Amino acid sequence: MKTSKLTSLPSIRRLPSYLVLVQQALDEGMEYISGTVIAQELELEPIQVRKDLALTGIVGKPRIGYSVKDLYIAINRFLHWDTEKKASIVGAGHLGQALMGNKEFLKHGLRICAGFDVEPSKIGKKFHGIDIYPLDALPQVKRELGIEIAILTVPSTAAQEVAEQIVRAGITAIWNFTNVKLKVPSQVIVQQEDLSSGYAVLTVKIGAFRASPPG
Amino acid sequence: MKTSKLTSLPSIRRLPSYLVLVQQALDEGMEYISGTVIAQELELEPIQVRKDLALTGIVGKPRIGYSVKDLYIAINRFLHWDTEKKASIVGAGHLGQALMGNKEFLKHGLRICAGFDVEPSKIGKKFHGIDIYPLDALPQVKRELGIEIAILTVPSTAAQEVAEQIVRAGITAIWNFTNVKLKVPSQVIVQQEDLSSGYAVLTVKIGAFRASPPG
Repeated sequence: MKTSKLTSLPSIRRLPSYLVLVQQALDEGMEYISGTVIAQELELEPIQVRKDLALTGIVGKPRIGYSVKDLYIAINRFLHWDTEKKASIVGAGHLGQALMGNKEFLKHGLRICAGFDVEPSKIGKKFHGIDIYPLDALPQVKRELGIEIAILTVPSTAAQEVAEQIVRAGITAIWNFTNVKLKVPSQVIVQQEDLSSGYAVLTVKIGAFRASPPG
Repeated sequence: MKTSKLTSLPSIRRLPSYLVLVQQALDEGMEYISGTVIAQELELEPIQVRKDLALTGIVGKPRIGYSVKDLYIAINRFLHWDTEKKASIVGAGHLGQALMGNKEFLKHGLRICAGFDVEPSKIGKKFHGIDIYPLDALPQVKRELGIEIAILTVPSTAAQEVAEQIVRAGITAIWNFTNVKLKVPSQVIVQQEDLSSGYAVLTVKIGAFRASPPG
């Protein structure tokens, strides 16, 4: 893996927020947007904005800023959001259903085209227009629909076992919404979505705020 | 706000994963754990582990490592997870219900003690043992239960308006699960949980992997 990409995780995490802003600028018909304006809107330092955007290969023009259209294309290309990826939800509980109903994902090229569960009452149903299959059907549905990404939303107690089924089905990318650190072969990419990380930032901010509230 | 804390967001985001490991070590009756072992388990560089843990004020002993008990206390104290915080879910849809059912939060001192929605069919019900109130009752329930944190899980289109109701009710910390950048007074702390950030990291990893798969 290219280390240049992996060492810049915080920048990568910020890029989607740039994209929201750039989309707004596009919608408003703006041709150029300055790094200073982006910095103000996103509450970042201008130097940070330049560094983050440089990742995508784009360079601003002095006194004019960035071409909005070029920026839109460059960020989407860098994130690989310009090509569609097919995904399935594995675990159609509340969280799985919430993700199936998320309309934002499509904008990022993420198409959730199947759901899997073990509960008989859910199998054969549709949630947000997406069919729910029995977990056993994963290898077959994966082949038929060309599923690349498994979004893992099963209870933590089942996470490792189900991850192994996902790997056996030939899926090599797992977006893991459980709090279990999955053990998978090295060719499988796992991105863990750990809610406790965000909560940690919130509680540290609350603590810092109480220690020294802004004037 | 103390800038020392805000400049170390990536470290803060990692601390919960240390805590999972330290909890395991505690459960197994270990007295000390070395930085090297922690680094291996979490797939981090040892120098990074030392830097992350130094944030909490704890220092390892040469050749012995960290006292597991001290580490547990130091991380929890740094994150302010050693004191209970009362929260409410605002928006009792699928995501809100999934969060109400999350048993992990209690371990971090986060007690979800009320839910709010505008839909008559939900009001008066209990989800995972938590009462659902009408959104209008927020100021009163906030006072009665001592709610400090609002977890915002309404549809994006309602996010800003509902955030303003939350602020008017006197709640000064919002954990924002919508994709809207909320405009709130400066004394209100907002932590945005943006799923697209995690998805960005996943797609960049997939792209990097395809460009150069591991031998």
